[in-house]
Amino acid sequence: MQQNKGRVTLPSQQNFLEETKELMERWGADALRDSDGTKLDEEIKQLNAKVYTTYFVARSHNEFAEKHLEEMQQLYLMSKFNTATGNELTIAFLDGYFEEQVEADYIHDVKKWWEVIDRTTGEVVDPVKWQVDKVQNVLIITDAIPWHEYTVSFLAYMKWDPTQMYNHITNDWGDKPHEIPFDVRQPHSNQFVKNYLQKWLKGNPDTDVVRFTTFFYHFTLIFNNLGEEKFVDWFGYGASVSVAALEAFAEEKGYRLRPEDIVDQGYYNSTFRTPTKAYLDYMDFIQKFTVSEIKSLVEEVHGHDKEAMMFLGDNWIGAEPYGKYFKDTGIDAVVGSVGDGTTLRMIADIPHVKYTEGRFLPYFFPDTFYDGNDPVLEAKENWLTARRALMRKPLDRIGYGGYLSLAYKFPSFVDYVGKITNEFRSIYELIHEVKPYSGLKVAVLNAWGRLRTWQTHMVAHGKYYKQTYSYQGVLEALSGSATDVTFLSFDDVIKSGIPDDVDVLINAGDASTAFSGGECWLDETLTSTIREWVYNGGGFIGIGEPTAFHHQGRFFQLADVLGVDKELGFSLSTNKHFTETVDAHFISENITSYDFGESTDNVYALREDAEVIEYSNGSIHLSSSSYGKGRGVYMAGLPYSHENTDLLMRSLYYAANKEKQFNVWHASNPYCEVHAYPDIKKYTVVNNSAEKQVTHVYLGTGISYEVALEPCEMKWEDYANEG
Amino acid sequence: MQQNKGRVTLPSQQNFLEETKELMERWGADALRDSDGTKLDEEIKQLNAKVYTTYFVARSHNEFAEKHLEEMQQLYLMSKFNTATGNELTIAFLDGYFEEQVEADYIHDVKKWWEVIDRTTGEVVDPVKWQVDKVQNVLIITDAIPWHEYTVSFLAYMKWDPTQMYNHITNDWGDKPHEIPFDVRQPHSNQFVKNYLQKWLKGNPDTDVVRFTTFFYHFTLIFNNLGEEKFVDWFGYGASVSVAALEAFAEEKGYRLRPEDIVDQGYYNSTFRTPTKAYLDYMDFIQKFTVSEIKSLVEEVHGHDKEAMMFLGDNWIGAEPYGKYFKDTGIDAVVGSVGDGTTLRMIADIPHVKYTEGRFLPYFFPDTFYDGNDPVLEAKENWLTARRALMRKPLDRIGYGGYLSLAYKFPSFVDYVGKITNEFRSIYELIHEVKPYSGLKVAVLNAWGRLRTWQTHMVAHGKYYKQTYSYQGVLEALSGSATDVTFLSFDDVIKSGIPDDVDVLINAGDASTAFSGGECWLDETLTSTIREWVYNGGGFIGIGEPTAFHHQGRFFQLADVLGVDKELGFSLSTNKHFTETVDAHFISENITSYDFGESTDNVYALREDAEVIEYSNGSIHLSSSSYGKGRGVYMAGLPYSHENTDLLMRSLYYAANKEKQFNVWHASNPYCEVHAYPDIKKYTVVNNSAEKQVTHVYLGTGISYEVALEPCEMKWEDYANEG
Ligand SMILES: [Mg+2]
Ligand SMILES: [Mg+2]
Ligand SMILES: [Mg+2]
Repeated sequence: MQQNKGRVTLPSQQNFLEETKELMERWGADALRDSDGTKLDEEIKQLNAKVYTTYFVARSHNEFAEKHLEEMQQLYLMSKFNTATGNELTIAFLDGYFEEQVEADYIHDVKKWWEVIDRTTGEVVDPVKWQVDKVQNVLIITDAIPWHEYTVSFLAYMKWDPTQMYNHITNDWGDKPHEIPFDVRQPHSNQFVKNYLQKWLKGNPDTDVVRFTTFFYHFTLIFNNLGEEKFVDWFGYGASVSVAALEAFAEEKGYRLRPEDIVDQGYYNSTFRTPTKAYLDYMDFIQKFTVSEIKSLVEEVHGHDKEAMMFLGDNWIGAEPYGKYFKDTGIDAVVGSVGDGTTLRMIADIPHVKYTEGRFLPYFFPDTFYDGNDPVLEAKENWLTARRALMRKPLDRIGYGGYLSLAYKFPSFVDYVGKITNEFRSIYELIHEVKPYSGLKVAVLNAWGRLRTWQTHMVAHGKYYKQTYSYQGVLEALSGSATDVTFLSFDDVIKSGIPDDVDVLINAGDASTAFSGGECWLDETLTSTIREWVYNGGGFIGIGEPTAFHHQGRFFQLADVLGVDKELGFSLSTNKHFTETVDAHFISENITSYDFGESTDNVYALREDAEVIEYSNGSIHLSSSSYGKGRGVYMAGLPYSHENTDLLMRSLYYAANKEKQFNVWHASNPYCEVHAYPDIKKYTVVNNSAEKQVTHVYLGTGISYEVALEPCEMKWEDYANEG
Repeated sequence: MQQNKGRVTLPSQQNFLEETKELMERWGADALRDSDGTKLDEEIKQLNAKVYTTYFVARSHNEFAEKHLEEMQQLYLMSKFNTATGNELTIAFLDGYFEEQVEADYIHDVKKWWEVIDRTTGEVVDPVKWQVDKVQNVLIITDAIPWHEYTVSFLAYMKWDPTQMYNHITNDWGDKPHEIPFDVRQPHSNQFVKNYLQKWLKGNPDTDVVRFTTFFYHFTLIFNNLGEEKFVDWFGYGASVSVAALEAFAEEKGYRLRPEDIVDQGYYNSTFRTPTKAYLDYMDFIQKFTVSEIKSLVEEVHGHDKEAMMFLGDNWIGAEPYGKYFKDTGIDAVVGSVGDGTTLRMIADIPHVKYTEGRFLPYFFPDTFYDGNDPVLEAKENWLTARRALMRKPLDRIGYGGYLSLAYKFPSFVDYVGKITNEFRSIYELIHEVKPYSGLKVAVLNAWGRLRTWQTHMVAHGKYYKQTYSYQGVLEALSGSATDVTFLSFDDVIKSGIPDDVDVLINAGDASTAFSGGECWLDETLTSTIREWVYNGGGFIGIGEPTAFHHQGRFFQLADVLGVDKELGFSLSTNKHFTETVDAHFISENITSYDFGESTDNVYALREDAEVIEYSNGSIHLSSSSYGKGRGVYMAGLPYSHENTDLLMRSLYYAANKEKQFNVWHASNPYCEVHAYPDIKKYTVVNNSAEKQVTHVYLGTGISYEVALEPCEMKWEDYANEG
């Protein structure tokens, strides 16, 4: 059944024809791509492979952009906080920004479009009380209240595309021109984008796939005065703003946005902020426009018998694949970077496209491919991590990025990728149209729901944050587990209740973030709906500071469901009697040592019947509680590991009151997993580790046997009837 | 100069005359006391010593109380949270309470005095929607909203004095009658209390000091259904409530209190709660009444040529020694338990009394005085800890409690106490009327200010809380340091600004507690006053989560002054660039390893010029920052230790911009301290440890010399002129 060719995309480069042919052969590649900075030779384009060509819509056309600087992309920025020491306060609002990236918009009336806020009171300062010195780039408040802090929210032009800026600075591209981003909403830009694509399509007959990198609005990426990253938000709509957009918004939605709706106290509506109605409206407005413009570009591409592929990254704002308009784009494929199981699922689960493609790690860059380093290690870790998720929902294609010539110098790496590509194809062939066995359906509940499917607790692709890893582990564990996973927003629950097929809700995050929910938990429909549902048999897992908003004597608003709450200091006078741990518990049966990551402190049980599973240093870190016919489970944090995946799976089964079904299509060893495919009567036992493992394997009937697995091994087996 | 007699009080007991005489001699005692449970023999009363007699005002008189059960003390209690699963909800509101301690008040109209609250919405349930079944002790809500949570706030009678209840249960007193507390505000009780005291004074001619234990209202101490402590708040006004009090309050203050004003979401206005106006009014109301009633009792005592002494504990509510009416009581003396330097200063600093007395540890109880244990160890630790504070403000007397016969069996203990009492007298003789040298004036800033002088972060006497020790260390360090310490409330600052002589403000606590300040920080006068003051040269030290309330892009409202803020997750997108620690800093010059206790996480610098002193695990734990001519210092926590005392002192001097004056009357070794008394031209070098120490001693001129000290040694020296 092993396929030696197909479903693999390689980067190529100039003067690398023979080696490209060899690697295509060894890895079974059927597509070749260029990169930002590399072009393909003619001979390479004529090889027996699809050709992907990178296409920039709204940058990389300075010949146009320089003629229409008034259509340059804009953004709203906030100055630093400035304390008034007297009645006059001068604010150098550009202070801390990178002058090569941004400049103030003095074309539009500053009194209309800018906002000065007294951050001590939160009040907007009357524009008659300030003026702007456009030469010095300062704003002077003439009637400041001494010792109050002030900020200026100002409209700026973004003169340099952030991705090119990043590459330019990182790779020291010297005086290579700065690519100017322009706003497709503006008349000349809109026309240019369409005309240029038409011309380009005609001029690139060898291109099979137009790889849009991406469309119009770049995620927010702002540099500081030293040319270093100052602010990055992969989800940020900051750089989608313009006067034209704001006017169109007012027209469409019937009210005007304030600068503060975008600036948001300097948080710029980070995904960690529970979104305001104004911001949701703005996102909707940008998405609707973006999708309709993408649609016309895609139609043009199709008109030239080519495919349109979207790179998930860079200028993807408004084109979110889980957004409600995405299906209208007509996009054929999405490609994105696969750092782990979570990002694999983020790509693989995208609906409405013909195929998905994952770019695997490592990149063929000198930071990995240097003498004395073994790139196989990173490749293996990446593959093992991603493979779990692939078993649940395979990508349609995989690929690599960077300089093929670098990889070529590492024969053991070339060998290993050959194994990966073969294994990928064999998995794909078997299961791509087959639904895997799932023991449970899990819904991740937060303020974003479906829009941020597999994207919770992310700031920027692959960046580690001390504040997030203890929650990201939940998604990573789920990404390769035998569960169906869905994403629900609070509004979904308020409007439509909890879908019938959901077994367990998970709410995970720090207090007041969009992922925990903050003030949303004051909505009585939300809490009542969940209480009723759990009471009637549902499962609710809270991680970190779930349902947290201090109100009416409770911090966790579903403390009754969870059986625990967090001590804020107000109830120290109340004795905390229930600290005895249970002797044994289904959830902790397999655990050898706990790792709650950053963990959560000062959690205590409200009731004697709460089952305290782990208690240390004066705090509960793991517990469960009955609530009617249902159950609540509390966990202090869940960084990703094989043991924690086991812990989460046990918690899910326990919460769902389905412990008896736990040992079905299951491997007892946390380093191993079983994936079963009832429609084809096959299952596989997978060793997710790079060491040998022995495990009990439980079949669909619950019958078990022991098996030994080589490092990384997958053992496929057929089974009859129930298994 | 050593005095061999005086200023020491001993407990005595029956059949212990000769040994009492011997111990009086050896310890130089000049006063004898009885205890709750022990009486003095006639012969003992005739010894050459003052006699203290314990006196209970509002309990221990069941012969009266049983005849006037309608005047029993009351309190407001809150039921558990109850979730409605349908439209009818039955709440067993007494569930979890101790039936021997409390019973529901069915005498007064429940519809008028009770309150049912929908805790999901915070709304009060219309009394027509509920009724009480007085037989079953349940309240039935007939029109509940399913899946909302409800609580009942009910008036109860307190049938058993909490202190006697505690002793009774702890010591297994069997069928000894339960002492019924009664409310002095009620007519019969008020009359009884006065008549009885008069009669008692006549009947106790040998008593020199009436030791009130204490007056009318016991701090809140509630037991659970198992007869264990359920709720304890040494500052709680819970057991001062009655219908009579509530009616009088309405009369006096012009508005009625709601049960919720007392119940406070089940927190019962713990000192960790920022007090509401209603609660402050209620405290004022109780204090005014209590003081006027105490005044008449004290006058009666004085009329019999006896002294009135107040025990700081038990029924002290309304009689707070730092309260604004306290001086009107006419009380002669206050006695309290000395667990550490902080509690010593709490007693020693009490104004308006003729003398103060501290009861030192250990108590002569079997839990310390048993075969094989060495009570000297505890006595030494207690003495060393307290002595630091004594050097700043001596108590006028010291004493012990418990069974003298137990102590008598430990000759080394008897010896050691002989040393303590002599050392105490010699210190007292030298400095009791002399102001010690202080290098700085420090104000501790919180919601309570002066009323809770030396009482911040306390729940109940001597009880350890994981959530408080990292802040209590601040007071303990200050209690024996060469600083003047004052306590300021936010209202003090708002109304009167910061006193001219204050060098440094300290704000220490967890977010939203009364000690950090929570919402108080939204007051623009508060923040502006402090900003202006620091800008002009003041020092501000924030510990833990100072000035914390999330508002307008900041968590620490004085983040600009401190130079740091805490990441709540909303600004993860903003890079945190300023993590480099300074090479050296005045504050950390002496430190060998840091201990921030429970510490605070996710603190980051806002500005490049913030001086990061300690940064680890992604968070700043110690930093300083300039603000105009002043300075801010941030510390993640400060549990008490000698090293942390040094760290705090350095932080204070640095914040005050007075580093150059640090080495004045100072010992370089953190285990040693110098106390100087310019008025008498003496200073002492003290070894605060039980090991030998060597230290540099800096005189008032800054000139230094080295000295070696024996364990616990104090070396007194004279000096000429400037020292
Ligand atoms: Mg946390
Ligand atoms: Mg397993
Ligand atoms: Mg803390």
